[in-house]
Amino acid sequence: MLKAILVIADGMADRPVKELGWKTPLESAHKSSLNQIAKTGICGILDPISPGVPPGSDTATLALLGYDALKVYSGRGALEALGSGVNVLPGDVAFRCNFSTANEKGIILDRRAGRIANDDAVKLADSLQKIRLKKPANAEFLFKSTIQHRTVLSIRGPKLSTAVSDSDPGKNGEKPQEIKPLDTSSEAKLTARIVNELLQDFHKTLKNHPVNEERAKHGLPQANVVLCRGAGTIPNIEPLSQIFGIHATCVGAAPLVKGVCKTAGMRIADVKGATGTPQTDYLAKAKAVVQALKNSDFVLLHVKATDVASHDGNVKQKIEVIEKLDGMLGYLLNHVDLSSTYLAVTADHTTSTVTGNHEGDPVPIAITGPYIRYDDVMEYNERSCAKGGLNRIKGMNLMPIMMNLLGKTAKFGA
Amino acid sequence: MLKAILVIADGMADRPVKELGWKTPLESAHKSSLNQIAKTGICGILDPISPGVPPGSDTATLALLGYDALKVYSGRGALEALGSGVNVLPGDVAFRCNFSTANEKGIILDRRAGRIANDDAVKLADSLQKIRLKKPANAEFLFKSTIQHRTVLSIRGPKLSTAVSDSDPGKNGEKPQEIKPLDTSSEAKLTARIVNELLQDFHKTLKNHPVNEERAKHGLPQANVVLCRGAGTIPNIEPLSQIFGIHATCVGAAPLVKGVCKTAGMRIADVKGATGTPQTDYLAKAKAVVQALKNSDFVLLHVKATDVASHDGNVKQKIEVIEKLDGMLGYLLNHVDLSSTYLAVTADHTTSTVTGNHEGDPVPIAITGPYIRYDDVMEYNERSCAKGGLNRIKGMNLMPIMMNLLGKTAKFGA
Repeated sequence: MLKAILVIADGMADRPVKELGWKTPLESAHKSSLNQIAKTGICGILDPISPGVPPGSDTATLALLGYDALKVYSGRGALEALGSGVNVLPGDVAFRCNFSTANEKGIILDRRAGRIANDDAVKLADSLQKIRLKKPANAEFLFKSTIQHRTVLSIRGPKLSTAVSDSDPGKNGEKPQEIKPLDTSSEAKLTARIVNELLQDFHKTLKNHPVNEERAKHGLPQANVVLCRGAGTIPNIEPLSQIFGIHATCVGAAPLVKGVCKTAGMRIADVKGATGTPQTDYLAKAKAVVQALKNSDFVLLHVKATDVASHDGNVKQKIEVIEKLDGMLGYLLNHVDLSSTYLAVTADHTTSTVTGNHEGDPVPIAITGPYIRYDDVMEYNERSCAKGGLNRIKGMNLMPIMMNLLGKTAKFGA
Repeated sequence: MLKAILVIADGMADRPVKELGWKTPLESAHKSSLNQIAKTGICGILDPISPGVPPGSDTATLALLGYDALKVYSGRGALEALGSGVNVLPGDVAFRCNFSTANEKGIILDRRAGRIANDDAVKLADSLQKIRLKKPANAEFLFKSTIQHRTVLSIRGPKLSTAVSDSDPGKNGEKPQEIKPLDTSSEAKLTARIVNELLQDFHKTLKNHPVNEERAKHGLPQANVVLCRGAGTIPNIEPLSQIFGIHATCVGAAPLVKGVCKTAGMRIADVKGATGTPQTDYLAKAKAVVQALKNSDFVLLHVKATDVASHDGNVKQKIEVIEKLDGMLGYLLNHVDLSSTYLAVTADHTTSTVTGNHEGDPVPIAITGPYIRYDDVMEYNERSCAKGGLNRIKGMNLMPIMMNLLGKTAKFGA
């Protein structure tokens, strides 16, 4: 039985940097397993969304799972909430939120409330969850602390809309913004009103909360304001099981990516030690993939660490993380039967260690496995893969290519 | 502050020709600057519209500015009129027209009226502009002589349509065609009627005009008929300033290209000596680019001469023009700060010196500048660029790619 693994290294692709002699981190890293995959596979470059368009990890992962992100993407909030274990249903509108610190005049001093410890954040979130929405009577909300200052808020009720602005001003030194309807619909107006009122109630509960009083005593920033952004709803997509008739599993820690995988109907593997940071347990994730493969046709392995190093502009750490990822791939090469398993490695986007941003450059892709039209590319990186047999494809092309290798695609025509 | 220059050499790409030992003019020319750009940059081939589709300079320029020409293109007339300095407003329907010579039976003997001199053409156009449209009362027209026999006609009024045929039969030896509505709308019927009546009035004024009597005395063909083609309206597009938040300038002489750039909200630089012919002042244009770059984020430099030589099937002249263009690029390489400026060179289409037509082959593209994933292509031409790191892109991909390099593209997703 043929199976497939897709490894997505978040933001692994880069641009040439001066301190590496105008090589990219990927070109500079020791990476025998990545090179092995390139050597034995077919390589190419891939535009996650479209040439020049910098993707988010959510839109790129949707695309890499075969969906037309430009058509189906419906905001970040619901995906992140879903990936954080909040039960978001179709029609619910969810936000990514932050615990943050405001002064007496309401000006945000720290959008991350000093990266508040999980314990404190959970206690505050539990208190906020006890608040009741006043009206409409049939509306309710879920508020959950995820990691540190990060929280998600999901609103359930009749006739809501994602067409509302953020309260998060995006930088310190400004007041939270009033959430405004972005169109003239009654749904957008209602959603904005509910969230604005709720955020005021949150503030009332937070400002005198024992946790914050305790934090004040220890000189820690108080988490007295919740900032929201990225109103979203669950994308209306067919699950992979229905499109390709497969059992699919996600091995990853980043809530946003887990949320995308959940909307695609994938099982989410629980991996102890997978943290979404450069200190994640790479071996545990590799073992989880091998385990998941036993009862899945398709396993997505997502590694967030490469992106973290890139956003920090930390070239040295990016190379280290790529080398750890390479070790993880070495485990897969040794423990997966490559005579019946396809292994593809790509990135969800380029993250430049120079700009610290997601960029619109294409990313490398290599697919190894049985009956592949392997090419003569010998090294896995941005530039050598551009000479490969896949040439330049789009993100949403990859899944049909892999599913066809598994014999899971329907013939179009007679 | 990062900036970008896009050089479009009209019809520069070609097919291999026998007299050059089956090389293309670009492959045969001496072009150290073009090669320098290829060597230090990332190369590829580009389908202006779609593989095999021969583009016009109008549709190709729209695409190279990032627009989906297949969706937004709305005819040549309005773009050419706009680029000729006629104030075309949304809803106006404009035509590209010719002064031409008909015999007493109304048969066209010379579609270009002996390439009538500008002075004569301007006098005739001034007389025609004095004619008043009889009905509807609220309709009016603008008629302008541009270069030699070339003129533009723009109709303003309520409820007009571009769905009308040409009066220009496209070749000598035939009578002008009646302009016909191309759909059943009342707008198309009205537009056809207005222009048919106007062209008859034009003929009445022209046939006994003193300028034509003088021309007859000197044995010159009389400009006694106006032929119209390419009914068009201004495309409904967002300006580049709105899409990318940039100040953009066009350096070029061809009215059609200037018209496209105006619809994209670009400033049009006034360059003395830029003629749109092989005798254009290349250095003046290069200097204008350097000047424009001072208060623009993006400068488009368009050179028409390569296309003129191609349409004439003049291989020798095409090579000469490419070498002059190369000199112009040399000026740019020496006078532009390439540590903060991206320089891209492409053609808007292939024009074959054998067929004399625009062809559907892809064109070469090279982009040089900071942090580019430069490849190992050493020479700028149709075939070596096909081996470059960009692989094969579409015309409308180029602008997002360049704007992303400038940090002007918004992230899609989170």
